[in-house]
Amino acid sequence: MRQASVAEAAPVDPALLARLRAVVGEAGWVDQPDAIAPYVLDQRRLWLGRTPVVLRPASTAEVAAIVRHCAAASVAIVPQGGNTGLLGGSVPDQSGREIVVNLGRMNRIREIDPLNYAMTVEAGCILAELQAAAESADRLFPLSLGAEGSCQIGGNLSTNAGGVNVLRYGNARELALGLEVVLPDGSIWDGLRALRKDNTGYDLKHLFLGAEGTLGIITAAVVKMFPRPRDVQTALIAVRDAGAACELLADLRVASGESVTGFEYMPRICFDIVFRHLKGLRDPMARAYDHYVLAELSAGRATGALREALEVVLAEALEKGQVIDAVIAESTAQAKAMWAIRHGIPEANRHEGAVIRHDVAVPVSRIAEFIATASTAVRDRYPAMRILAFGHLGDGNVHFNINQPEGGDPAAHLAEWEAVHRIVHDIVVGMRGSFSAEHGIGRFKRAELERYKSPVELALMRRIKGLLDPGGIMNPGKVV
Amino acid sequence: MRQASVAEAAPVDPALLARLRAVVGEAGWVDQPDAIAPYVLDQRRLWLGRTPVVLRPASTAEVAAIVRHCAAASVAIVPQGGNTGLLGGSVPDQSGREIVVNLGRMNRIREIDPLNYAMTVEAGCILAELQAAAESADRLFPLSLGAEGSCQIGGNLSTNAGGVNVLRYGNARELALGLEVVLPDGSIWDGLRALRKDNTGYDLKHLFLGAEGTLGIITAAVVKMFPRPRDVQTALIAVRDAGAACELLADLRVASGESVTGFEYMPRICFDIVFRHLKGLRDPMARAYDHYVLAELSAGRATGALREALEVVLAEALEKGQVIDAVIAESTAQAKAMWAIRHGIPEANRHEGAVIRHDVAVPVSRIAEFIATASTAVRDRYPAMRILAFGHLGDGNVHFNINQPEGGDPAAHLAEWEAVHRIVHDIVVGMRGSFSAEHGIGRFKRAELERYKSPVELALMRRIKGLLDPGGIMNPGKVV
Repeated sequence: MRQASVAEAAPVDPALLARLRAVVGEAGWVDQPDAIAPYVLDQRRLWLGRTPVVLRPASTAEVAAIVRHCAAASVAIVPQGGNTGLLGGSVPDQSGREIVVNLGRMNRIREIDPLNYAMTVEAGCILAELQAAAESADRLFPLSLGAEGSCQIGGNLSTNAGGVNVLRYGNARELALGLEVVLPDGSIWDGLRALRKDNTGYDLKHLFLGAEGTLGIITAAVVKMFPRPRDVQTALIAVRDAGAACELLADLRVASGESVTGFEYMPRICFDIVFRHLKGLRDPMARAYDHYVLAELSAGRATGALREALEVVLAEALEKGQVIDAVIAESTAQAKAMWAIRHGIPEANRHEGAVIRHDVAVPVSRIAEFIATASTAVRDRYPAMRILAFGHLGDGNVHFNINQPEGGDPAAHLAEWEAVHRIVHDIVVGMRGSFSAEHGIGRFKRAELERYKSPVELALMRRIKGLLDPGGIMNPGKVV
Repeated sequence: MRQASVAEAAPVDPALLARLRAVVGEAGWVDQPDAIAPYVLDQRRLWLGRTPVVLRPASTAEVAAIVRHCAAASVAIVPQGGNTGLLGGSVPDQSGREIVVNLGRMNRIREIDPLNYAMTVEAGCILAELQAAAESADRLFPLSLGAEGSCQIGGNLSTNAGGVNVLRYGNARELALGLEVVLPDGSIWDGLRALRKDNTGYDLKHLFLGAEGTLGIITAAVVKMFPRPRDVQTALIAVRDAGAACELLADLRVASGESVTGFEYMPRICFDIVFRHLKGLRDPMARAYDHYVLAELSAGRATGALREALEVVLAEALEKGQVIDAVIAESTAQAKAMWAIRHGIPEANRHEGAVIRHDVAVPVSRIAEFIATASTAVRDRYPAMRILAFGHLGDGNVHFNINQPEGGDPAAHLAEWEAVHRIVHDIVVGMRGSFSAEHGIGRFKRAELERYKSPVELALMRRIKGLLDPGGIMNPGKVV
């Protein structure tokens, strides 16, 4: 693929472009092909769009002015944060008529209020910087995910990002107390409230959270903070199977006083692949097991109570046969080494060839059933494919990834993408599960949305889109 | 006021009534004035509406059929749960043309799934019965509020009820994983998903949560459960002032590992009134103080760690002068006696004459400032009025109640309702607070909504109402 030049992408009215340039100034104007390139290529390098210009506004007023001008000219806008989404939701189409509005320059933390456990932040703040800002106020901002070094909070909120701490702290949606949004007509909705209770009419922020920029542009937010854990216990646990992992989780939640902050399931194949490709990692256990859980418990004060609860539950689970072996980290370094295995899976797996990915969720109680049923169904039809079902068991969220057969042809594997998706998604939806647990819809899962949502639900979504964005200028071709 | 007879309220077409009677049958048909009376009088006995009939459907299909018939005839519906709301949102107007649809017969628990920490319940389930059902599955359903013996979960969700556990577990909105809703055209949206992560398009449930039945009728829900606490520590704490209470809360949250499940602030006047009017209650402390906090901490396992954390923080706070005195309950009976003081305030205060009530919220960090500023402003104008500012400090939610002067005239006091509201609500909104933290809008706070919401926000709310309920048949005259 080749990036189109500005000249080729000329259909946007030059007079509009001049107005937009006046709004953002030189610092917010990106129109050279080389400079544009990273803004129009999606994270997984599956989609290269075109745009005449990337606008980088510095304030909410600038965003509003951009939207007003574009609305008047019926020119579409693609709101963009860190451009780390996995489903093509943050890149323009190939018409050259969509203008990218990147929020990266709006990166001020407007206020930190430790006593209210909240901070007011602009959309372009990098997630890792918010984590650090909270920590420097002796607080925790719990949202944590692979892209945290480059993703932006506006994008996290617009996509309702998940990650590894959802079990205890909720998705991005649950972390938002208030929003500031530029609506598709260019007006500004100031919903920057920092309240724990507010029942004054419809709770409008939920329209924009998770809407992937199709209903407006989130420009700022009030997000929750939490006490910073002083005591973190991490354990790698070999379990009998995924069902035993699920029971262990339920017991740990009770015994630890709801202190389980991470609970990741990994079958052995994940370990094999990680140790095969990533240097410096080693198996903390003396022998290999079929199923593992990486559990993390966190508490505010280091009293030994958390470690004790963990040991008691593990001892009981060993006796019941749910757990076969376990290693509790004795240091932060050991805990990090355990997490490195989990976090290393996606990178290591890139060396294994082509992967058909699913990001699904079912009720936590049905995870084992789902993995068994879907694995059998895939293997029945494709005996040589290798299944990596791992992930956030504590949220019922499995990354059900299917590797190409060893030594097979990547293209031949990817040619089965649709057929494999159908097998897996039919099963997950049949279990009242989600065919996109944390990655959203974006551009790539629209057909799945169309296929699996009820006519009532689809119609409601489309009517809401039509109501808020009657001109269809907000991130067209995404979600609905 | 006088209840209208069916004959007087005749304007509803008898043919429609016959169709509705065929839908619900005799068991769901209430048309005798005596039987109707409790359904048309609001909880605070401020509003007596009229209705030709109260329908009590037994299934979602019956609700849908009712709505279809009423939509076709352009006849308005007032959805109703336990009719315990404080702002007149669940009673009909006085035209006799609005039909009450009470969900009380839809009271089945459809499923309890302890491993997924969730249950699927019908709208008419009584809150206290859901708490008991969760407990019998060794789980906690944390929603808890004064009316829990008669309010229904459908109403709790429709009003986004708050209560005493919001600090730790969230409002009713946060407890809902999925909903089933009959839309204003009579179609059924089945959103009964029991998932912790699901990013498949717009999250429609948030439209109906807190909408007070103006956008549809919630007929069932999947709600979250939590581990049942094994260790509960309760303390009555005399604090220097409300500001010290706020700092104490922040420290307790950290030290206890986010185990603070209740944190209620009470000034001395509340104690005086409770001991004056309620028998069997006594002050757990030897002498009187100006400001109190009732704190509750909960943990999954009784290890002594919670008590220890509480004692350490209290000792530190004593040293810092934040805390002046404290009593930790040594038994469940002692804890109950402490809570009885807090829960006794509304009942005791009924003996004190007329009360002008405010249910407001500000950021937790600004509670002390709000109480001081609003108290001064009210006293400046009305020196003899007595202020009871108490409540859920942990959520920033104060019940800022103003008692009539001692020995004064109740009617004269209530005549100042609007003027006092203006003083208090102007201050709270000026602090970016909420003029209705947990009680909603209903019928009685619509003028406040109109006054304090921005034109952008009001317009958005009205457009959503117009989109979902173009005929305006769902609980008209409420919220927007």
